[in-house]
Amino acid sequence: MKLDLLVVAAHPDDAEICVGGTLLLARDAGLATGVVDVTRGEMGTRGSREERDRETAAASAVLGLALRRNLELPDGRVEVTLAAREALARILREHRPSVVLAQHERDLHPDHAATGRLAREAWYLAGLRRMAEQDGGPAAARPRRFLSFMGHEPFEPGLVVDIGPVWERKVEAVRCYASQLAPAHAGDRGEHFLFGADILGRMETRARAWGERIGVRYGEPLLPLGPLACADPAGWLAS
Amino acid sequence: MKLDLLVVAAHPDDAEICVGGTLLLARDAGLATGVVDVTRGEMGTRGSREERDRETAAASAVLGLALRRNLELPDGRVEVTLAAREALARILREHRPSVVLAQHERDLHPDHAATGRLAREAWYLAGLRRMAEQDGGPAAARPRRFLSFMGHEPFEPGLVVDIGPVWERKVEAVRCYASQLAPAHAGDRGEHFLFGADILGRMETRARAWGERIGVRYGEPLLPLGPLACADPAGWLAS
Amino acid sequence: MKLDLLVVAAHPDDAEICVGGTLLLARDAGLATGVVDVTRGEMGTRGSREERDRETAAASAVLGLALRRNLELPDGRVEVTLAAREALARILREHRPSVVLAQHERDLHPDHAATGRLAREAWYLAGLRRMAEQDGGPAAARPRRFLSFMGHEPFEPGLVVDIGPVWERKVEAVRCYASQLAPAHAGDRGEHFLFGADILGRMETRARAWGERIGVRYGEPLLPLGPLACADPAGWLAS
Amino acid sequence: MKLDLLVVAAHPDDAEICVGGTLLLARDAGLATGVVDVTRGEMGTRGSREERDRETAAASAVLGLALRRNLELPDGRVEVTLAAREALARILREHRPSVVLAQHERDLHPDHAATGRLAREAWYLAGLRRMAEQDGGPAAARPRRFLSFMGHEPFEPGLVVDIGPVWERKVEAVRCYASQLAPAHAGDRGEHFLFGADILGRMETRARAWGERIGVRYGEPLLPLGPLACADPAGWLAS
Amino acid sequence: MKLDLLVVAAHPDDAEICVGGTLLLARDAGLATGVVDVTRGEMGTRGSREERDRETAAASAVLGLALRRNLELPDGRVEVTLAAREALARILREHRPSVVLAQHERDLHPDHAATGRLAREAWYLAGLRRMAEQDGGPAAARPRRFLSFMGHEPFEPGLVVDIGPVWERKVEAVRCYASQLAPAHAGDRGEHFLFGADILGRMETRARAWGERIGVRYGEPLLPLGPLACADPAGWLAS
Amino acid sequence: MKLDLLVVAAHPDDAEICVGGTLLLARDAGLATGVVDVTRGEMGTRGSREERDRETAAASAVLGLALRRNLELPDGRVEVTLAAREALARILREHRPSVVLAQHERDLHPDHAATGRLAREAWYLAGLRRMAEQDGGPAAARPRRFLSFMGHEPFEPGLVVDIGPVWERKVEAVRCYASQLAPAHAGDRGEHFLFGADILGRMETRARAWGERIGVRYGEPLLPLGPLACADPAGWLAS
Repeated sequence: MKLDLLVVAAHPDDAEICVGGTLLLARDAGLATGVVDVTRGEMGTRGSREERDRETAAASAVLGLALRRNLELPDGRVEVTLAAREALARILREHRPSVVLAQHERDLHPDHAATGRLAREAWYLAGLRRMAEQDGGPAAARPRRFLSFMGHEPFEPGLVVDIGPVWERKVEAVRCYASQLAPAHAGDRGEHFLFGADILGRMETRARAWGERIGVRYGEPLLPLGPLACADPAGWLAS
Repeated sequence: MKLDLLVVAAHPDDAEICVGGTLLLARDAGLATGVVDVTRGEMGTRGSREERDRETAAASAVLGLALRRNLELPDGRVEVTLAAREALARILREHRPSVVLAQHERDLHPDHAATGRLAREAWYLAGLRRMAEQDGGPAAARPRRFLSFMGHEPFEPGLVVDIGPVWERKVEAVRCYASQLAPAHAGDRGEHFLFGADILGRMETRARAWGERIGVRYGEPLLPLGPLACADPAGWLAS
Repeated sequence: MKLDLLVVAAHPDDAEICVGGTLLLARDAGLATGVVDVTRGEMGTRGSREERDRETAAASAVLGLALRRNLELPDGRVEVTLAAREALARILREHRPSVVLAQHERDLHPDHAATGRLAREAWYLAGLRRMAEQDGGPAAARPRRFLSFMGHEPFEPGLVVDIGPVWERKVEAVRCYASQLAPAHAGDRGEHFLFGADILGRMETRARAWGERIGVRYGEPLLPLGPLACADPAGWLAS
Repeated sequence: MKLDLLVVAAHPDDAEICVGGTLLLARDAGLATGVVDVTRGEMGTRGSREERDRETAAASAVLGLALRRNLELPDGRVEVTLAAREALARILREHRPSVVLAQHERDLHPDHAATGRLAREAWYLAGLRRMAEQDGGPAAARPRRFLSFMGHEPFEPGLVVDIGPVWERKVEAVRCYASQLAPAHAGDRGEHFLFGADILGRMETRARAWGERIGVRYGEPLLPLGPLACADPAGWLAS
Repeated sequence: MKLDLLVVAAHPDDAEICVGGTLLLARDAGLATGVVDVTRGEMGTRGSREERDRETAAASAVLGLALRRNLELPDGRVEVTLAAREALARILREHRPSVVLAQHERDLHPDHAATGRLAREAWYLAGLRRMAEQDGGPAAARPRRFLSFMGHEPFEPGLVVDIGPVWERKVEAVRCYASQLAPAHAGDRGEHFLFGADILGRMETRARAWGERIGVRYGEPLLPLGPLACADPAGWLAS
Repeated sequence: MKLDLLVVAAHPDDAEICVGGTLLLARDAGLATGVVDVTRGEMGTRGSREERDRETAAASAVLGLALRRNLELPDGRVEVTLAAREALARILREHRPSVVLAQHERDLHPDHAATGRLAREAWYLAGLRRMAEQDGGPAAARPRRFLSFMGHEPFEPGLVVDIGPVWERKVEAVRCYASQLAPAHAGDRGEHFLFGADILGRMETRARAWGERIGVRYGEPLLPLGPLACADPAGWLAS
């Protein structure tokens, strides 16, 4: 199945939290979207693996994803191995997305950083004909664009997507991960204590802060790898 | 007259050389485009002022500009004065362009750098209601986007416009400035000796080098001020 | 009168909006604080000058300022003149603050940018003995630290002040500027349309976004000029 | 044992040379300090491993360290493995330092760079509850602050510690590594030839150069990961 | 054999394409030059390994190389292992080049990036006496200079070499790789589709764009690791 | 008189302190060197103008300068006016130096920063033929290279000049400014209190710190404007 947009993220709720709005807008516009989670998120402070799998399926339905796959790397121990990047390159050749979004390579969480590098290297390798031939699968295909999304470390984005029209549905998708949203016990601040807020509160603060940068209510920041190609300047002039 | 796109440039041929392709693409798409030249270019190494004015008119016709104005600042002596930036702000309020393109503020040529700062400050001030009221002219209006184009000092662009479809017409627009293209005398290397090439040769080299960054034959680099707003991710996904 | 902390800002409400919390915390700790406004804010989209003066006095009282002065430069037309920077240097020699905070020199609003450069240059010149002697006033004195605060353009800060304990009083100080907070007329989006929110909403979003970077509820970002001197590492280890 | 400050360094004398002053100041203020050396330094150009161990013990005594441990990774071959970073994360959970200092991740010496990344990743992982539970040891605990110190490649620091009051004792601590200070043979310029000076001379030049940046005689530069939290602005105003 | 200049590159034609001119100029000036290819380029979209080996030998002859060696790492799967970097360090100790040039560590092609890091780490380790002794080969020796050359991702260079005098011979050296220059089949755009041009066209565009930055016809950009040492300012003043 | 190297500095002792070694090395190699001081340094904390003039003459003799001129701008009040930059451009056309060195444009001292911008803009304008014709003096001539030297704010240099061979004579040249070196009165820390050391001590610390970056005893850092042109790679390979 040919995809238009593929998101690569370390843990099952990362895609929803960080680019759920962009995925919804793309889906609403009729594009085929997908997510590859690199791990099952089994090291998450809260919830069992089974809970997370059910939650992931529910969130995928809200997002209207055409594909959700998992690389099955160990949570908390993601490494950029040859095997992992070739497995991801194979997925890129199979589904031929036009655009890939992945976590930024500079991130406080080692899994996020490794995922960003894994995705960028796989993106490049997916376009090598010999590598595709050796693999015996589909023909070489490199997605036309690669952009980074923001995890636990800020960067100055090249563009901010106005996700106001789909904000409530993004929140709904994230709420599917109920096990992650409630404290596991009194005093639990979990892996997110860095941010002094629960996940939904933090997500809203960020969405509003980025939205303000472009004069809208809610935004998701993205950083293109290299300059964006602009074939139709009138398009972005008018938009 | 309402414009869609306004270019602000220091010398009469700068707009054609640096963003002539973008202007042509916008015009072809039915947008109203204009150029404000900050000086008459009378300090140019070659040609008289009258020649340059005739050449400018011819180039404007090739570009299909709806507006070409001149701030009449002295060539080689552009300064960011209050008067100059308020005069430019007035033009912005009169013509209400959605997008402004201006030279980058970091440039070897002092006129280019001053023009970039002049345009950015005028862009901001054009949106202040009180300032518009004091001026007694049209209502306050700040163009939605501000981008820098490249003069004599490179930067890493945020986007590159594919100008392949209009390359020949861009060359034609630049050729209107015949007085600038021929050496004034034997051994003349003029103000462009920095670049080791005549104007057309240099322009082509750059267009091809930037085109390669996005996989096309000819490109023009632009740097947005702040992140680009993206209201329709499907639009740039599909483009 | 000797001050501990002096804030230099372009318009009367800038100090409250951007570093009101830091001023309150310093005052609560027994330090003497002051603000120099560079203009009367007469170009503000809303309110008369008299209103703004009354509002400024009320806000100063909430902040417990020991000094509030005005450089009387024209709003919307702040320039870094020799006269202006020497006037500000004289104020620095008179009040000998240990620390100066001023707007960052890179800012969308030309007045903010000019104020930041004005303050930095005055800060340096205040320490030149001959200049003080020529002036005939108090002896040369350069504040020990100079930090930039954030206006209309973000930067990566060197430190974020936890203003949670004084947040309500900061809001109270900003509310004193009632003429700035209400739309002047239906459809008014004024000079702040860039940010897609009213002043108080925008202020809260930013305070929360910066607070999250250090794990607290509300923060104000600051950028030191040069590295911070640390005489007592145990102090910041324990803090 | 709870520590206040923990230093992570590649080779046994790195902590003394690079942050010996900061360790002494912290100790003098009554804080509990420690050092984790990543290797035994057995690849050092001079001295045997036994010599270096004796020297390390003597230097630890001068610094008044409450803890000195060694990760036993091979000198000249430090790699960021899962095992190494989990071993270091365990140490962080055991001793719960408030602050971690480690070499900067960009450094000419591959061991320094690897140590910096190892420490940063371990710092993050130490805060994941599930990882702590799997490990079966102490509860998850992420140090509040993480800062980089300078090895063989300069950076612009966020703060410089004034180590003037403990300079002589820092020199004394470094002198404990006698085997490293004397040339092994005539003409020996060893691994430090890059720097055109012996270790003590080089250390003094750097301490004075950084001291001058903050107006003191001797300084040690540090770079915080993310903005520093400032809960008490009056504290650093007055310091 | 003592070398003056050694180039380390990922694939057999990278050295010719990226720094063939610099190698020719050095050879013409009587210096001894060499290339270490990290892989055989067997993953290249076109040509067999035998073809590439013959082509490499022919190109080496055109460049007048005194040494061409191969690290035999797998193409498309270059990793910075301890074994690989120690093997390269051994070559550096054997041939004692004064200067090493290697691909930049930030590059779209993972092999290029890995080669850059491999070379920089080997460069440092080659100077450690103990490591040389353990290895049992030649004495420790660290090349005096290390510079990066440009692959598939641009950077702002510290210097640009004027390769005009040897341009035709550089083209001749690259033409030796005939299997890489012709499309393998109709519609083949291979691994270079990113750049919208065939290898020779792309190489010329880049050489001209960089040449213009220094006012010559053809240039090759280089980025020194750390500041360049200048022992004879009159030399570069006069050059 | 044709010069090879021209230094532009704000105050009479700046050239000696910051690039005295480079000037001496160039002179020793037979090049013609000169200095343009922008002010008489009359705002200096210590010494009269007559003293400084005598001191400047003595220092010029030590450096063997072929030219020393003064732009007579007011000390402490240097501004980048059209008149000042055209006066400096005229000097550049008169003496046609191949290389210009000037203070960096980012500097704590406003005079240093203004001098750096003044020199860069004059450097560009000196090459405009029409401007030279209007001026009625010598023909247009733009120096081939422009580099910044370091004042009161550090930067990462592109090259460091090894000034070991002329260090004592550099110190001798600076000692000519006796009025600047002695405290004017007990407790005088003057304009240099920022640096916690007297001028000579500070100069030595910096020279040694920069020397270490290239493995020599004393160095002076320089930052080229744009990439350095390298016509003879064998030259810098061998140097």
